[in-house]
Formats: sequence, C-alpha cells, structure tokens
Amino acid sequence: MALTIGVDVGGTKVAAGVVDDRGNILEKVRRPTPSTNPKETAETIAEVVDLLKGKFEDVTAVGLGCAGFVDETRSVVMFAPNLAWRDEPIKAIVEGLVGLPVVVENDANATAWGEARYGAGRGHDYMVLVALGTGIGGGLVIDGELYRGRFGVGAEYGHVRVVPDGRRCGCGNRGCWEQYASGNALVYEARELARVSPALAGRLLELGGGKPEGINGPQVTEAAREGDAAALECFRTIAQWTGQGLADLTAVLDPGCFVIGGGLSDAGDLLLEPVRQAFTNALTGRGHRPLPEIRIAELGSAAGIVGAADLARL
Amino acid sequence: MALTIGVDVGGTKVAAGVVDDRGNILEKVRRPTPSTNPKETAETIAEVVDLLKGKFEDVTAVGLGCAGFVDETRSVVMFAPNLAWRDEPIKAIVEGLVGLPVVVENDANATAWGEARYGAGRGHDYMVLVALGTGIGGGLVIDGELYRGRFGVGAEYGHVRVVPDGRRCGCGNRGCWEQYASGNALVYEARELARVSPALAGRLLELGGGKPEGINGPQVTEAAREGDAAALECFRTIAQWTGQGLADLTAVLDPGCFVIGGGLSDAGDLLLEPVRQAFTNALTGRGHRPLPEIRIAELGSAAGIVGAADLARL
Amino acid sequence: MALTIGVDVGGTKVAAGVVDDRGNILEKVRRPTPSTNPKETAETIAEVVDLLKGKFEDVTAVGLGCAGFVDETRSVVMFAPNLAWRDEPIKAIVEGLVGLPVVVENDANATAWGEARYGAGRGHDYMVLVALGTGIGGGLVIDGELYRGRFGVGAEYGHVRVVPDGRRCGCGNRGCWEQYASGNALVYEARELARVSPALAGRLLELGGGKPEGINGPQVTEAAREGDAAALECFRTIAQWTGQGLADLTAVLDPGCFVIGGGLSDAGDLLLEPVRQAFTNALTGRGHRPLPEIRIAELGSAAGIVGAADLARL
Amino acid sequence: MALTIGVDVGGTKVAAGVVDDRGNILEKVRRPTPSTNPKETAETIAEVVDLLKGKFEDVTAVGLGCAGFVDETRSVVMFAPNLAWRDEPIKAIVEGLVGLPVVVENDANATAWGEARYGAGRGHDYMVLVALGTGIGGGLVIDGELYRGRFGVGAEYGHVRVVPDGRRCGCGNRGCWEQYASGNALVYEARELARVSPALAGRLLELGGGKPEGINGPQVTEAAREGDAAALECFRTIAQWTGQGLADLTAVLDPGCFVIGGGLSDAGDLLLEPVRQAFTNALTGRGHRPLPEIRIAELGSAAGIVGAADLARL
Ligand SMILES: [Zn+2]
Ligand SMILES: [Zn+2]
Ligand SMILES: [Zn+2]
Ligand SMILES: [Zn+2]
Repeated sequence: MALTIGVDVGGTKVAAGVVDDRGNILEKVRRPTPSTNPKETAETIAEVVDLLKGKFEDVTAVGLGCAGFVDETRSVVMFAPNLAWRDEPIKAIVEGLVGLPVVVENDANATAWGEARYGAGRGHDYMVLVALGTGIGGGLVIDGELYRGRFGVGAEYGHVRVVPDGRRCGCGNRGCWEQYASGNALVYEARELARVSPALAGRLLELGGGKPEGINGPQVTEAAREGDAAALECFRTIAQWTGQGLADLTAVLDPGCFVIGGGLSDAGDLLLEPVRQAFTNALTGRGHRPLPEIRIAELGSAAGIVGAADLARL
Repeated sequence: MALTIGVDVGGTKVAAGVVDDRGNILEKVRRPTPSTNPKETAETIAEVVDLLKGKFEDVTAVGLGCAGFVDETRSVVMFAPNLAWRDEPIKAIVEGLVGLPVVVENDANATAWGEARYGAGRGHDYMVLVALGTGIGGGLVIDGELYRGRFGVGAEYGHVRVVPDGRRCGCGNRGCWEQYASGNALVYEARELARVSPALAGRLLELGGGKPEGINGPQVTEAAREGDAAALECFRTIAQWTGQGLADLTAVLDPGCFVIGGGLSDAGDLLLEPVRQAFTNALTGRGHRPLPEIRIAELGSAAGIVGAADLARL
Repeated sequence: MALTIGVDVGGTKVAAGVVDDRGNILEKVRRPTPSTNPKETAETIAEVVDLLKGKFEDVTAVGLGCAGFVDETRSVVMFAPNLAWRDEPIKAIVEGLVGLPVVVENDANATAWGEARYGAGRGHDYMVLVALGTGIGGGLVIDGELYRGRFGVGAEYGHVRVVPDGRRCGCGNRGCWEQYASGNALVYEARELARVSPALAGRLLELGGGKPEGINGPQVTEAAREGDAAALECFRTIAQWTGQGLADLTAVLDPGCFVIGGGLSDAGDLLLEPVRQAFTNALTGRGHRPLPEIRIAELGSAAGIVGAADLARL
Repeated sequence: MALTIGVDVGGTKVAAGVVDDRGNILEKVRRPTPSTNPKETAETIAEVVDLLKGKFEDVTAVGLGCAGFVDETRSVVMFAPNLAWRDEPIKAIVEGLVGLPVVVENDANATAWGEARYGAGRGHDYMVLVALGTGIGGGLVIDGELYRGRFGVGAEYGHVRVVPDGRRCGCGNRGCWEQYASGNALVYEARELARVSPALAGRLLELGGGKPEGINGPQVTEAAREGDAAALECFRTIAQWTGQGLADLTAVLDPGCFVIGGGLSDAGDLLLEPVRQAFTNALTGRGHRPLPEIRIAELGSAAGIVGAADLARL
C-alpha cells in the first residue's frame, strides 16, 4: 500500500500526517511554525516528516500545502505573507533534508483537493472550495484536476473587489470579498454591532466579557444557536455577501458544486441556509440554467493534510 | 484539405464562412436573422450552409456560434435573450437540414476560440476573452482547451456584480460589470456627461446632432482621437472599470493573456493604455506575481466564424 | 389696497403677475426669455412690468424671483446657470427701466415664501420647500422669515451629496441629491428601466413612442396612475431617495413642515405616501421627537410670482 | 456685575462654573455623573450649583447644557442616550432644588453659543459648530441667535446619512456622518489600518501597546505630528469626510463661519488644512460664491459651561 505524507504549513503551526490511498490519516503530528526564520521553518517540516517516516517505512513522497503563492513549477514559494519565505526553493530544500520526492502546493488548493477527492466534493469534476476563516482561502477543481492557473496563483477569490472604496484589506486594496465574507468578517460585524448598539447586542457582549473586542467567532455562533437576534443578524449579513460572491463565481466558472470550509463552516446550517437563499436570489440567469450544489466541507482542518498527501501521490 | 463552415448566429444577422485549417475564411455570406421565428432561424442557417457547401465540396462539418446559453452536450440552446429559442435542439434540427455533423457553441466562446487559435491569443494556453460591445461577451481557454463549465454556461463575466445597488442590468440584477465596462457603458457615460455638462461636452454634442441621445460609440472614439477632453474622460472611466474587472478575473483565473474584443476594441491604444494602467493598480499581489498580457483582439467580427468552424473540426 | 408685481425669471420664460395682499393674482402675462442676452432679458422684465403697471395704477413695488445665486444685498445676480447673467446688478437696471422699487430674490426662495404665506405652508414658522423638477429647488422659512444664509445662497439642497462617486451632476460634482430625487430623476429611472428591461417596461415604452428616450415625466405619472408595475417601481425609487433626504434635512433643520413642489408634485399621493413612509423609516430619533408634516404644494407654478410679489411688499 | 452659572451635564461628568458677562469662568467644579439614576443626577447638579452660589452671592440664573434632546420650551429633556432621563422636567426640578431660574439647552448648542459669543465664532452671525468627539455634536447660530428648530432638536448633523448602506451607527441607522468624521472615526480608521496592514502601521501599533484595539485618538495625533505616514493617512481620510460634510452643510445653510471643536480639534492644523482642502474641492458653486471661514474652536471643554451660563443671562 502506497503511503504519502501531507504537511500543512501555516503561519502558526506545521501539521503533518501519513495518509493512505483512501484518504485516511494513519498518524498525525504538529509543531509550532518558527515563522520568522526560513531555515528553521524548513527544518521543522523535515523534522515532522522524519518522525512520521520512521514509523511508516513505505512512505513514497511528501506533499506540502503552504500558505503562499506557489510558482507554476510547484517548486518555489514566491511570496508568503505569514511566513518569512520570499522566492524560497522549498521543494529542493526539503527534498535535500528528507530524501523523498516533494510536491509543493498552495494550502487552500491542497484543502480543495482533499475535499474534492475524499470530502464534500466527491463525485464533482467542477468544484469550487471557499474556506471562510481569517480571510477566504480558495481552490478550484476543473475537469477532475486541480486548477493552478497560468502562473500557479489562481483561485484567490478573497481579493475580488466587491465594494468600490470599501473596507481596507490586508492586501493593500479596499473592498475585497474576504473583508465581507469570512470568519473575521463575522467577528467584525458582531463587534461593530456591539459597539454602536450595546443594548441590542447584550448577549454577544456578555459572551465577550463586556467588551466589543472580546467577542470572538465561536461566541457569535453560540449566540446564534441560542436564537439571539443580534447574532443571527450578523450571520445573515455574512451569508448575504457569501451568497452574492458564489453567484459571481458561478457567472465566471459555472461549477457543479461549491464546498464551504474554514472555521466559519462549523456553523453548519446556520450559515448554509441563508447562503443558499442569497445565492439563488443573486444568480443571473436563474430559471434558465442548472444550479450548482452548495455544501459544507466534511474533512475540517485535516483536508489540507489529506489533499497535500494525495497530490504527492499523483 | 479539411474545410469546415462556421456560422455566427446573432440577434440581428446570421454570418457564415468556409474556413480552412489555418483559420482563413475562403468565402463569406450573411443574412438577416428572422429572430422571432425559431423555425425560420434554423432554415436561414441551413440556407447559408447549403450555399457555401455548394461552392466547396470538401466541407466536413458545421460549427454554430449562438448568442445564448448552450447546454453541456453542445446540442441544445437553452435560452437566448435575442432569439426566440427556448430549449431548442438546434444541433439535431440543422443536422437534419444540411446533412453534415453540427457542433453548437456559445458565440462568445466561439470568438474566444477563434482568437486563441488564430488571433491575439495565439500561443497562450490560459486565455480570457472579454468582448466589450452591447454588453460583455466572455470566453475562456484553459490548458489549451475551450472552457465550458459544468453546465455549459461559464465565462459569463458581464454579470459579475461590481457595484452593490448599482445600475440596472438587463439580466434583472443591479451593478453588473457590463453596465460599467462595455461599448454601451461608454455611450452611457458620454450621454450622461452631455446631459449634465453640455458646455464641457460640446464636441460630443456636435457629433451627436445636438442631443445627448444622438451620441454613439464611434463618435466618442472619434472625439477622443481628436483629443477632446470630455471623450477622453469617458474613456478613462470605462478603462478604470475594465481594468478593475480584469484584476478581479486574474484573482480567480490567473490567466496568461487577456484579449479585449468587441466594438469598443476598435479604439485600440486609446482603450488599451488606460486599461493596463488600471489593471496594474488594482491587481492584488502586484510585485509578487507574473502579470498576464493584455491585448486587443485581431480578428474582429470574423473571430466568431473562424472559432465556430474550428470547433467543428476538432 | 397695496398691489405689487411678482416676476418669475426662468431660463425659458418670464412670467409676471399683479398680486394683492391676500396672495391673489389679478392679472398675469408671460414672455419667452431671451436668455442669452442679459440686456434683452432685463428689457423683457421691464416690458411685462410696464404692461401690468398700465392696467393697475396702484402698484407700489416689484419682486423678481430669479433662477440663480442672488447676493446678500438682494441686488445682484452673481451667477445664473441658465441665463447669461454674471454679477448682473439687476435691481438697479430694472429700477431704472420701470421706475419702481425692486427686490431681487432667488426663484426657489420666492416660491417657498409664496407657499409659506398663502399655500401649503400657511401657519408654519419653520418650513422647508423642496421643489422637485428639472433639479431640486430649495427654500427655507425660519421663525416666520425667509432664510437667505450669510451670503444669500442657502437652501440649495439639491447639491448635497447623497452617494459617494454617484451620478454626475450639472454642478460638476457627483452624487448630488437632485440626481436621485427630482422630476428628471424619475424620467431617468424610467428610461433606464425601459432600456434594460423592455418587457417589464412595455407600457412606459408604448407611451414613449417605442423608445426609452421618448418617455417623459407626465407619462410615468400616467402609467403609475393606471397601476403599471414598472412606473410604480420608478416612483418608489424616487420616493425612497426623497424621504431619506427629508430625514437628513430634519436632522439639520428640525422644521415643522415640508412642502413638496415642482412638476413631480403633480403626482400627489402617488408620491406623497411612499415619501412619508421612507421619511419615517429613515429619521434618526424617530419615537423620541415630534414629526414634521409633509405636504404637497398648493399654488403650483404661481407660487413664484406670488412669493416674489409679497417679498416686494415687505 | 451679573453672574450666572453654567453646567455641562454629560454622561460621565457634571462640570459647572460661575461665568461673568465677558465669558470668563471665575470658579469651576466638577463631579462624576450618577448617570443611571435620574434623581441623583438632578441632585448632583443642585449640589454643584449650591457650592458655587455659596461663593458668589450675585448669581442670578443657571444654564444647563444637557447631552440629549431638549423640548421646544427648553424645560424638558425628552431623551438622553447616555443619561437615564426620559421626558424629564429638569428645569422645574432644578429650580425647585436651587431656587434660581434655570434654562435648559442641548449641550452642543450651549457649546456653539459659547464659541459664537466668546470663542472662534466671535463676530459671525451665521455660525455652524461641529464638535468632533465620540460622535459629532452640532450647533447653529443664525442671525446672531441660537437656532433650536421647530421642536428644539435641530443641528444634529452627525446623523445625516453620507453613505447608503454604510457603517452602522448607534442611532440604529447606517452610514451616518459621525461614523466617518469624528474622533471615534479616526480611531476606527487607525485600528482598521493596523489590523489589515500591521507593517505599515508599525508606529501606531507600538503606541497602542501592540494591539489594534489599544490605539487611541491622542496616539494617532501624536504619530501624525511625528510625520508617521499611516497616521497621516488616517487624518486625510477623516478630513476628506469632514470637508465633504461641511460642503453639504454649506449648500443647506450658507454660513459665514464653521467652528470645529471636540477632542479631534486638538490636532489643530493637522486636521484643519486637509479639511479646508477637501471642503473647497467639494463645494458646489465654488468660484461663484463667497466662502465661509473654517476655524478651530478656542474655548475647549469650557465652551459648554460658558455658553450655558450665557444663555441663562439672556
Ligand atoms: Zn484584498
Ligand atoms: Zn446583469
Ligand atoms: Zn450637484
Ligand atoms: Zn446615526
């Protein structure tokens, strides 16, 4: 049985696992990312790979899912906002350290591939992953293959502009989708609501320890589950922007399935139902075209490991 | 030598041509479209095909580029706003009338394919066509193949929303890109400018016969070529919206080349320079990623015929 | 009985009347405005005054309501977009020609004063006039007196910005209120709707002779009276912007009464009901403050003559 | 010499002073506001008045500047968001407690009056005060008198809508001016900038203790004084919205002078210069009308006491 190792390299942690050819993770390990030091980051990756390789002898390859722009040859991380890598030839470096073939992929792409092969996107050849977390991670499967674009940096949906002169984005522009439809955007809505309407947002403030800036995402979801009107209004606002964005992506990509992942997807139907409603209202040509499915991701944070491992096998 | 016939079926005219395997049109013919009568529309297509077939005996297939949603089997036009077709099995009907294999494609897709194979997109495997005319026609080539999406209706860029609660669009929504970046949008800008600032728009009004609603697109281009400040301002506005939209498509698709066609592309550098500028200013990640080329289409209105004919050959 | 003459000096016509001290017009006369010639415009004013003076011997003064910025001494028209006057000492010129004391006022101010004294604003010491016509004419009565501002040019509500980067305005800015809430804005809505959704706007197009640019304001009102859905939607849109603007003026001015005049006010309740609704929804502090009345003007186009005449009497 | 007492009744403190007829404060005292208890709030007011009255025997009246809607008879506070008063007959209550005639006024109106009589608005009969603090406090002097509106609640500029569907406001609406142009809006800009662009906002984050929510207004001003690019960008943004709003108020009110007060006015020229620039760019009719002055307030937080005291004297 061919085993491969998938590694999810994020700004705060390196998570790795040994994965079999049915998408099962046989063993996992994680380490904090020494994110300010490129050399140490590579060594940490090598360390977790060696550790897993020591336990499973028939590991044949390693897939890295990295939070950054990966070049078209899948060898170099050109730019990673939350790591110290700039034009880092990470494939060669890690291959030198671990003695196995290495494949490098963007982390959201790896996640998309994991969901497409073993998760909520199974059976769909045209699938869009939208991971709603700190920002929006995007991935795209076309004709059953992972889409990378001409230069390796496609599917960055989060920075499509949806509001002229809108909210600032970390990318330097204004009005990017991820400022309106992400886990952070939900928290932003809740805090803004608590700041200007403390009476209405009583339950949210209580959960947040009395201060708007104390409110976090899981608390908003908790309050919404209890039926709190303020929290539900925040969800409706985020769902509106999310559904509109999926309609815009449908105009461009005409996919068969959307998979919504990221931390915000833990809210399940609380998010899914208003997103579907907003999507249907916003779609151009509704009534004259088949509709894609919209599903919640199934693999959670393991999708990145599974996807990276599977890409190493191909 | 394998010859095929390409037919461009629009709301006002049916244009057809015999095309060789180097993209040359050997003979052309056109007829007005009897657009309110589905049967007569099919008969007009058959008529022009028969006429061309009579002159070139070795024609092997026919490609139709139709202004409408084409289904995933490339047989049926599901919906065509400017024709009377609703779920019309046009492939079977035309095959029955002309006795040749028929391939059906969306007209903008056919145009994209024509430019990709024989026009401004030659040599690019990841190409986006944006045809700026009445609205925005869109086409997409991925990995050297025409992209159709899961249900055959992808690459409809014109109806991506770019302004919340923006201008009305014929699709029933508000704020669609084609209301801000198209030949019609240029005319709209010029007329609005003439309406509210007649003194500033003196030259435009003169060309338009003294009335805002008399101004048309070629006149705006003419005035801009003369250096008229009002016309140039209209071009800058349209170019701004166009460049922003190309940046948004780049975030999603990461193409190697954009080809700008449609009537507005006749303006050439007058349009191209400010579009490139706006694109570069708007692109997320500029400085950390390779840039796609942006080019003006080369085949003009023949691209649809050439592309449809070539798709029939494949 | 003291009689005075009021003259309404607009860009297309000069309308004058002899008015008694109860606001009755005893005789009226009108002439086309020779608007491109300052001298002839003044002579036309003198001509209609002389004609009326010849019939009513006890006329004691003349009030001019002029479409332009009037200086604080009420003697000079500083700027008139639709007349050829620039810093025109019109008081002195007309006094020289007719031999009577002359008072100069902005035309919308004169209209406001007419409605405040003898029309819909009777009994209100804090009244705002909003005349919805080509643009928005504004007038203000505070503590029972006409408000002129420090430099004579207050109450120009039409150029308050309501949409950042919004529609162009003839004043050179973008997003001015009068581009969204005026008779012209209603026509704009209707034409835009007919342009992008001809099927929905069938009745409007029929009335407009088949072309969007053929649709005029009275036709939209006519269709709305018939219950036409498209026309009613246009009215709702305009009413929404109007009501919001009145709420904004209330935050600033806290008036006792709004009077809505101008050509659009001919629509009566068709306009008034949705304006009131939108106003109430938009007002900050609703529930904690008394509400102003909102009324339709009563004097129609005579208000300017009556108001100018009355201001000459004071 | 006639002395009066002015009391500034805010949500957190009650500040009072004895004021002579030249606007000098002879003695001051302050207490925390027991804001959740209407009775205790009145008693605190009486306490500070008694204390001052005991030292200056010839005090003849008391003026209260209260943070809330004051009715047209200047006797009752109808609604006070930061106090527990609802339709509180505060004039009668305090007169009963202190045995002196009492005049009640909105606190921003009192501030406006103080600046108009003894501060930056001296010599101007048409003056607008805009106090940029937590929100926007507004006051208006017309023809040398304090303007109250028909129902006592005019000059609430902060809740004029400037962005459709914009930022939430504590008043329950969205897009109110005070969400874009106030001390709080400056902090909001700075925190948002620090959140999305920590590298650019390094100095601001340093001052704020490393966290976006630690940044406060005086720190942004401090960084701007040092020439920090991020802080200066925040000031430019706020100044842009402020200048636009002053232009809109000028269209309505045509004042001779704007006085900018509130905590943000401590920034002086750092704020004033870009506000003037933005105002001039935004004003409709610029070039054809005299411009109002724009000045920084001179009396600081004492303006409310001085103004209230002076209103009690009239
Ligand atoms: Zn962004
Ligand atoms: Zn559309
Ligand atoms: Zn304007
Ligand atoms: Zn508000």
